[in-house]
Amino acid sequence: MNITEKILSKKAGHEVTPGEIIEIPVDLAMSHDGTSPPAIKTFEKVADKVWNPEKIAIIFDHNVPANTIGSAEFQKVCREFIKKQKISKNYIHGEGICHQVVPEMGLVEPGKVIVGADSHTCTYGAFGAFSTGMGATDLAMVWATGKTWFMVPQAIKMEVTGELNPYIAPKDIILNIIGEIGIAGATYKTAEFCGDIIENMGVEGRATMCNMAIEMGAKNGIMEPNKEVIDYICKRTSKKESELNIVKSDKDAVYEKEMHFDVTDMEPQIACPNDVDNVCDISKIEGTAIDQCLIGSCTNGRLSDLKDAYEILKDQKINDNIRLLILPASREIYKQAMNLGYIEAFIDAGAIICNPGCGPCLGGHMGVLSEGEVCISTTNRNFKGRMGDPKSSVYLSNSKVVAASAIEGVITNPKDLM
Amino acid sequence: MNITEKILSKKAGHEVTPGEIIEIPVDLAMSHDGTSPPAIKTFEKVADKVWNPEKIAIIFDHNVPANTIGSAEFQKVCREFIKKQKISKNYIHGEGICHQVVPEMGLVEPGKVIVGADSHTCTYGAFGAFSTGMGATDLAMVWATGKTWFMVPQAIKMEVTGELNPYIAPKDIILNIIGEIGIAGATYKTAEFCGDIIENMGVEGRATMCNMAIEMGAKNGIMEPNKEVIDYICKRTSKKESELNIVKSDKDAVYEKEMHFDVTDMEPQIACPNDVDNVCDISKIEGTAIDQCLIGSCTNGRLSDLKDAYEILKDQKINDNIRLLILPASREIYKQAMNLGYIEAFIDAGAIICNPGCGPCLGGHMGVLSEGEVCISTTNRNFKGRMGDPKSSVYLSNSKVVAASAIEGVITNPKDLM
Repeated sequence: MNITEKILSKKAGHEVTPGEIIEIPVDLAMSHDGTSPPAIKTFEKVADKVWNPEKIAIIFDHNVPANTIGSAEFQKVCREFIKKQKISKNYIHGEGICHQVVPEMGLVEPGKVIVGADSHTCTYGAFGAFSTGMGATDLAMVWATGKTWFMVPQAIKMEVTGELNPYIAPKDIILNIIGEIGIAGATYKTAEFCGDIIENMGVEGRATMCNMAIEMGAKNGIMEPNKEVIDYICKRTSKKESELNIVKSDKDAVYEKEMHFDVTDMEPQIACPNDVDNVCDISKIEGTAIDQCLIGSCTNGRLSDLKDAYEILKDQKINDNIRLLILPASREIYKQAMNLGYIEAFIDAGAIICNPGCGPCLGGHMGVLSEGEVCISTTNRNFKGRMGDPKSSVYLSNSKVVAASAIEGVITNPKDLM
Repeated sequence: MNITEKILSKKAGHEVTPGEIIEIPVDLAMSHDGTSPPAIKTFEKVADKVWNPEKIAIIFDHNVPANTIGSAEFQKVCREFIKKQKISKNYIHGEGICHQVVPEMGLVEPGKVIVGADSHTCTYGAFGAFSTGMGATDLAMVWATGKTWFMVPQAIKMEVTGELNPYIAPKDIILNIIGEIGIAGATYKTAEFCGDIIENMGVEGRATMCNMAIEMGAKNGIMEPNKEVIDYICKRTSKKESELNIVKSDKDAVYEKEMHFDVTDMEPQIACPNDVDNVCDISKIEGTAIDQCLIGSCTNGRLSDLKDAYEILKDQKINDNIRLLILPASREIYKQAMNLGYIEAFIDAGAIICNPGCGPCLGGHMGVLSEGEVCISTTNRNFKGRMGDPKSSVYLSNSKVVAASAIEGVITNPKDLM
């Protein structure tokens, strides 16, 4: 069996097979200020008390601080629910983006089943958990019963090998994969990432890659935990390695499909407007004029992303025609970046540092684009109008490309500045 | 003559008298992302080129980063105008709030006449300048001609003396004055602040007080420059004291009215909803439940305000029912606060640090209130619906009171925590 089948089998109490529908208990049900209110509305029609307040996490990240009266109302509804249901795992004071805060707070472990009312809940596969997004109505039923149903997904094995060059980041690998397979290429399937590159990849890069599994339609992205993951989880959960349920795929595990990606000599990958699979080598679009540069999000707002940007931006000034927005993914990352001097260097370069949260990724506030404007961004989606006006456009890249582009004022290969 | 009459006389080229209408040249015309676009619209109907691009400053502060497609469009219009008119004094990359950035950038000097399309332009009276707000249409005419008209205001002399206690700040003095005189008590008059307390007051406290002159209807607030002001201006403008036009009132200057305020034994002053002159001693409303605490704005987002808050918040945690938002008034202040450890202490206390700008002061974004919610804030206006829903409410205070209230979860006298 593969990792996902093993996790689901243990929860189901029998050996599952792809295509089978199972109803299983979940270990954590996550939601945020955008999806909790509709979930609460549904929940209150069917139940009075949540099944287990200790297994529910609510994070404010989408519109923090509240950007409209409507979002302020949404947050009030959440606060009242949190109090009434005694949900102690609430992170509603600007702790950061759910997909960063949940692992930071020690709520993720290998082998767990985590659901979340946010499509990028697949992020926690980076830690060897089965995790996936669901709608707010489905989440309400999890709150009420502690269980949910899945069809056991078929799996695609994605082996990544080769030699990484210094201006490439995990974001390029996942964009390359999505470009190859297409936005619906893994629909309702497990994307199981493996190979030398994955085995040696840090926690943050792994999170970037699993985070974007949904962008090829995958039910979940997943990786075998490596030493760095195990150390991270032990530190965050105060557990010993022996207490964790570290699941690995069998040698003879069955996959619907096996794919191989070689990163040697890979150029930075750019997802061009208006689809995440509209991916090309940076050399094809270098020099494209831009208005806004954005470093942040649940995909690429982590310390390694900020470090990559810092190395390019320190002692430099951004182009006067550009605005550069930087949003650390969490309060912890913000503090680390501050203590490492990154924040000061970003400010000196001309960046605006926003508070941790989703910010402009989904066009809600803090960097909305007007008609015709172009943004290059480390975020995960570039759909039409994603970041503002339907006639604005978004290019997706790693944070080195965004930093280099901010200096030059056009889409720039960081190789040219390194 | 008093300071204002002397400044206006010099510009008019003759000795002016209150009530007289004069047309005079201005030294600086300031506007921001909210008021520049309507000014541009009017300007383009009457002129092609601004009278002097060196005497125009445009700052982005009201909706930074852009919170809606509309504000993004407004900012685009400004950027195009800045380029076309070659306005080099543009601060459109998150440098901070106009009324802090303009002095920081050395654009204020004693004796100057400064107009701005923002009601709190009266702030620069703290530096001995005649400065006042005007509408965007009037500003457009200044852009076109370099001149504007004023009726020479009558002046009220406001002498402040006594002994300040440590939980009192300049904000309390100005709130006390406004409470006494009323929101229309100084309409179209000069509020000339003087007395021991003013003479010994730092640049930042002076800015707080002059900033709120408009809240009693004053045309301008003004103070004789003291040593600290002169040092500040010399540093920022790279001029020597002898090059400045330091204007002081004559001993026999005529005032329409003279008022005296004794700050000895003053309690922290609170402007209660929904008028700035609805001022009371804090003891009358201690214990009032609050939802949000805000430290920032052109009134109280300066380093001394953050220091005051830091002294109360360090090693403390804010109440779990409260959200505390802190917005340094400028990028420079943000960096100073960061290097002094204030920012880290605020984060550790549970605050959200937003990027420098006006933020939620005017209910646009970054901390909008929902129905029934209550905010205690260092800002300058508490009108009905100012910060969000018409049924929300705002109390105004100094930053020590806000910090203490954030810890206790109710309006709290900082004296109780010191």
